[in-house]
Amino acid sequence: MKAVQFRAHGRGPELVTLPDPVPGPGQVLLKVTAAGICHSDLSLMAAEPGTLSFAPPVTLGHEAAGVVEELGPGAAGVAVGDAVAVYGPWGCGVCRACAAGRENYCPHAAALGIRPPGLGSPGALAEYLIVDHPRHLVPLDGLDPVQAVPLTDAGLTPYHAVAESRHRLPPGSTAVVIGVGGLGHLAVQILRALTPARVIALDVTEERLSLARSSGAHEALLSDDAAPAALSGLTGGTGAAAVYDFVASPATTALAAGAVAADGHLAVLGIGRGSVPVAFGSLRPGVTVTVPYWGTRQELLDVLALARAGRLSTRTETFSLDQAPEAYRRLSEGGIVGRAVVVP
Amino acid sequence: MKAVQFRAHGRGPELVTLPDPVPGPGQVLLKVTAAGICHSDLSLMAAEPGTLSFAPPVTLGHEAAGVVEELGPGAAGVAVGDAVAVYGPWGCGVCRACAAGRENYCPHAAALGIRPPGLGSPGALAEYLIVDHPRHLVPLDGLDPVQAVPLTDAGLTPYHAVAESRHRLPPGSTAVVIGVGGLGHLAVQILRALTPARVIALDVTEERLSLARSSGAHEALLSDDAAPAALSGLTGGTGAAAVYDFVASPATTALAAGAVAADGHLAVLGIGRGSVPVAFGSLRPGVTVTVPYWGTRQELLDVLALARAGRLSTRTETFSLDQAPEAYRRLSEGGIVGRAVVVP
Amino acid sequence: MKAVQFRAHGRGPELVTLPDPVPGPGQVLLKVTAAGICHSDLSLMAAEPGTLSFAPPVTLGHEAAGVVEELGPGAAGVAVGDAVAVYGPWGCGVCRACAAGRENYCPHAAALGIRPPGLGSPGALAEYLIVDHPRHLVPLDGLDPVQAVPLTDAGLTPYHAVAESRHRLPPGSTAVVIGVGGLGHLAVQILRALTPARVIALDVTEERLSLARSSGAHEALLSDDAAPAALSGLTGGTGAAAVYDFVASPATTALAAGAVAADGHLAVLGIGRGSVPVAFGSLRPGVTVTVPYWGTRQELLDVLALARAGRLSTRTETFSLDQAPEAYRRLSEGGIVGRAVVVP
Amino acid sequence: MKAVQFRAHGRGPELVTLPDPVPGPGQVLLKVTAAGICHSDLSLMAAEPGTLSFAPPVTLGHEAAGVVEELGPGAAGVAVGDAVAVYGPWGCGVCRACAAGRENYCPHAAALGIRPPGLGSPGALAEYLIVDHPRHLVPLDGLDPVQAVPLTDAGLTPYHAVAESRHRLPPGSTAVVIGVGGLGHLAVQILRALTPARVIALDVTEERLSLARSSGAHEALLSDDAAPAALSGLTGGTGAAAVYDFVASPATTALAAGAVAADGHLAVLGIGRGSVPVAFGSLRPGVTVTVPYWGTRQELLDVLALARAGRLSTRTETFSLDQAPEAYRRLSEGGIVGRAVVVP
Repeated sequence: MKAVQFRAHGRGPELVTLPDPVPGPGQVLLKVTAAGICHSDLSLMAAEPGTLSFAPPVTLGHEAAGVVEELGPGAAGVAVGDAVAVYGPWGCGVCRACAAGRENYCPHAAALGIRPPGLGSPGALAEYLIVDHPRHLVPLDGLDPVQAVPLTDAGLTPYHAVAESRHRLPPGSTAVVIGVGGLGHLAVQILRALTPARVIALDVTEERLSLARSSGAHEALLSDDAAPAALSGLTGGTGAAAVYDFVASPATTALAAGAVAADGHLAVLGIGRGSVPVAFGSLRPGVTVTVPYWGTRQELLDVLALARAGRLSTRTETFSLDQAPEAYRRLSEGGIVGRAVVVP
Repeated sequence: MKAVQFRAHGRGPELVTLPDPVPGPGQVLLKVTAAGICHSDLSLMAAEPGTLSFAPPVTLGHEAAGVVEELGPGAAGVAVGDAVAVYGPWGCGVCRACAAGRENYCPHAAALGIRPPGLGSPGALAEYLIVDHPRHLVPLDGLDPVQAVPLTDAGLTPYHAVAESRHRLPPGSTAVVIGVGGLGHLAVQILRALTPARVIALDVTEERLSLARSSGAHEALLSDDAAPAALSGLTGGTGAAAVYDFVASPATTALAAGAVAADGHLAVLGIGRGSVPVAFGSLRPGVTVTVPYWGTRQELLDVLALARAGRLSTRTETFSLDQAPEAYRRLSEGGIVGRAVVVP
Repeated sequence: MKAVQFRAHGRGPELVTLPDPVPGPGQVLLKVTAAGICHSDLSLMAAEPGTLSFAPPVTLGHEAAGVVEELGPGAAGVAVGDAVAVYGPWGCGVCRACAAGRENYCPHAAALGIRPPGLGSPGALAEYLIVDHPRHLVPLDGLDPVQAVPLTDAGLTPYHAVAESRHRLPPGSTAVVIGVGGLGHLAVQILRALTPARVIALDVTEERLSLARSSGAHEALLSDDAAPAALSGLTGGTGAAAVYDFVASPATTALAAGAVAADGHLAVLGIGRGSVPVAFGSLRPGVTVTVPYWGTRQELLDVLALARAGRLSTRTETFSLDQAPEAYRRLSEGGIVGRAVVVP
Repeated sequence: MKAVQFRAHGRGPELVTLPDPVPGPGQVLLKVTAAGICHSDLSLMAAEPGTLSFAPPVTLGHEAAGVVEELGPGAAGVAVGDAVAVYGPWGCGVCRACAAGRENYCPHAAALGIRPPGLGSPGALAEYLIVDHPRHLVPLDGLDPVQAVPLTDAGLTPYHAVAESRHRLPPGSTAVVIGVGGLGHLAVQILRALTPARVIALDVTEERLSLARSSGAHEALLSDDAAPAALSGLTGGTGAAAVYDFVASPATTALAAGAVAADGHLAVLGIGRGSVPVAFGSLRPGVTVTVPYWGTRQELLDVLALARAGRLSTRTETFSLDQAPEAYRRLSEGGIVGRAVVVP
């Protein structure tokens, strides 16, 4: 089958031909119907050798939707022909975190060599995908795979961040979203669906601010030198109850840290080499700063239900497998608005 | 193999010989090391035909511990020889409740014919037990099976009830436990381990009150006509923040309803034909009344961890499989203090 | 001043002339700008002598908005001329419940003789109102008093019920509102603002169902013999995650009890002499049934913020003090759609 | 009256004579029975001019207990002769945070010039203390003022930190306390009372480790170069579910950041110039880092209730007002084990 791989550090993605995979005991084979292309893949390929938890070559693609093609021996709970999305942050399945569906925080996965598809295990940028266990599969139930596939990461990650901080967003409060890309434009929609908060979005281009507004942001501001004062003014000097930074550059983390209110919540979701120092006096009192990772199994069900209810609209641009390297190139240049999706 | 079955409505448990079971795809075969005998089995056998969700004959025993004897095709996550306890309230494994580990509230299990072992599926009062999926198995990790097996229901059920109401039990508050039997004496210990509340236990015999005190109750009272006034006096007239009724007779539900404070919590856990009417004025304002059922997967892990930390001591009396009918007879006469456990 | 009083059991409200009140130490005198008329007042006046916690005569009106007219000695935190709404369920102000703003569940208020205005203390159906403490006053901050005043009870009561159960209403879940009157039509709007749940409303007239739809209900159904099957069908047989019964007649409590899903929540908010019996088997497993009372101080701030954000629209009909007895008469005949408000 | 003041930056505390204070409208005058001496006072006096939110001279002492001596006009809710403790983090009393009792996070207090006693307002190291509002007073109800007074800060601060993270500490989990001084030795006791977690305490002297053990720590370790490996070993390599750093030096924050498990909680409570950088990869996934400040009104009630139940034992050393400067000197040299309390 065709697949797109990260084959060596410092090199871009490459289209290769691999043997068709065969599901082992308990596994499920999917025919891929859609796979998302994520900015974090660029970071992987640019990483220094030895800094990742796995080594190339590996097939890319950690957002996956497909149709069940074949069940390995003993696999149960899905049937051939089922249209499904894939829950990506696989855990050991037996520890306390996994028993509660918080497999994204399984403390044993790494040591057991369990890695998400596309992030160590063979990924979805291919014609077929092996899924280790049927519990990772969620029915699409009528959703279009191209629309749904970004929800498995670009939707689930902000959903998780919002769900964990939602109690801090009562009527009259403010939520700030920094970075209105693949994740951020969904964060705005999720905040509008789950909370009564006013949503302020920031980014660096008018095109992104326009996407923020059409996604439901009450205010959209340029993330420039005037932004701190603008946020302070919009919140009466007290700051925002929750801030979600999908960029996390040194500039945005400084903006975020200054914008979050006493007893407020700051989620650092980007990988832009910024950092929020937490110490007495470095933030307003009672602020909580967190680094959420992906989301839980039940939250993936929730995200898809939100889409089914018409509350999430994903901006996507589609590519074939052959075009995937080109899609990565455009993504690295900031040329994708919304999410790039590969349809094999 | 030998097994103890409920074979017909209105008849007691019977010792029978059955073929040794063979694990199917994805299933696990356990050699049973301990099985609990529960008061609720007596209710099943006494039920009118047609009132249960399943029909006899069925092997009894919904509290199970064992050693993995054989894995069916595709079963993974446990190994032959592992000493385990069994999570009983099996769900569909894929819905939102199950994804969060709340399989005890799976809305699809009944319709799919999924039933707990001993409550429709073949139970643990036998030499061998089939478990449908490895996720239902929890490592004993050094716990004695006889001590641990009651924790899978008699421990898990009160643990769940306490965990869901624990936020209502700050320092200075009062928790009331009605009925100090197999579940109640563990409820007292769990309240002491999880909360700083004062614990008041009620029952009808001095032997039970003595068990309450040795389990950690601050006060132990006879559940008689003077009990309502005593509880009122002990709580300054305001009532208890949480009440757990493990009897649920008409008398105890009336006592419980009168004893629970404004904004308090009342869990109805017994099956004694009593009922708490909820209406404006029937209870103090803001009271929550609930009918918890068993517990979640992660709570079973928690209960066993509590036992491993030395915080739970189960009063048990052991029987062989041949003696199981006799154990049920003594249980029906109130002659078991603590929990009866069968060791095949 | 003019006032409308409940003067004797079994008699209707009467317009009287009283001396103008003078604020004592720590109190605040309001000039009333709007006062709500509530169905529960009819129940008070119809009650048997000796069944209430206070005796007539008493000025009616437990929903109040006004302008600060005068501060008693030592009163601070508000200024003459401030436009405010009144938080009604006054507590002792010092106990744990009150310290957390849950004065509606203060266990000491009744014993201390502390009663809400209009429910024992002199109420708002008058030209002036004494408020015991400045903490009970919330700035209107631009809200129209006539629009805002029903929010202090008809808005706060459903807000509290929804806020306490909101975690049970993820995407894809269903909330059921029974009774689309003064409280119910606000409940629908609050559910839409705070949760992503689908909202189904039930009532007995097409006019009420139309109000439900314009309030945001996804479905509006006649509350008749076909309702149980309709609700079951709409929820795939599994029931609704939360049910709010603003009627609580025997018929609606039976409907509500049958409609609530496993692990779901049922709030009994009406005073219609129905009751929900809670026992093993009387409800799906894990259901919680509660009798919420009014709301907390911070929730009143939240409700007003929601109105300020344009998310709450109150259907009101206004009356003068002289017309208040007539308004009660029409209310008792079901002739008021939305909320009756008196403007002195 | 005699008082101990911070009179100029860079100078130590000084004993002075001041006019006896007179309570204004709504205020309460206390005769001080005990006042705590806190390490943070040393930081204040050492601060550079212009870096504080207030200027000297100011009477020190932010932990206060006393007897009500006189009520100002309009003050109500307490009576002359009442023995009380003082809630210190005063807020505006009317905003949403204050309405919920979270006055410690009032976003308006600073702008309104509202400051805690001893931290801008006249403090408790004096014969008499003015309290702005009766809501700040909590009955001692039999507690010894000397034992109780450290609980108003040294007890309340860790109580708040533990209460907000307690849901992360199930059976089988580990909590780490860094720094076993005035706050830390109470943190250990609070963790034992509120949670079933295993408690590991770290400090730099054997005397402190001994205090940790007698406070209930399961393990007490030297906070040296071997500590990271020791903590990793004790937690099976997965880290601790919650870490409380009462030192917050560069060394301890690094230790804390490395010790906290995935999905865990790290509270930075010390003022030792260390900082925890939060970024993708700087901590295990899902970690939450927070800077709690003091505690809520209801938590102060809880702390005192815990003491009344015999679950908190405060190590104290008493001094007269004349000896207070000497007590500060010894504190600065690390010569106080537990908490220094002044009895005027």
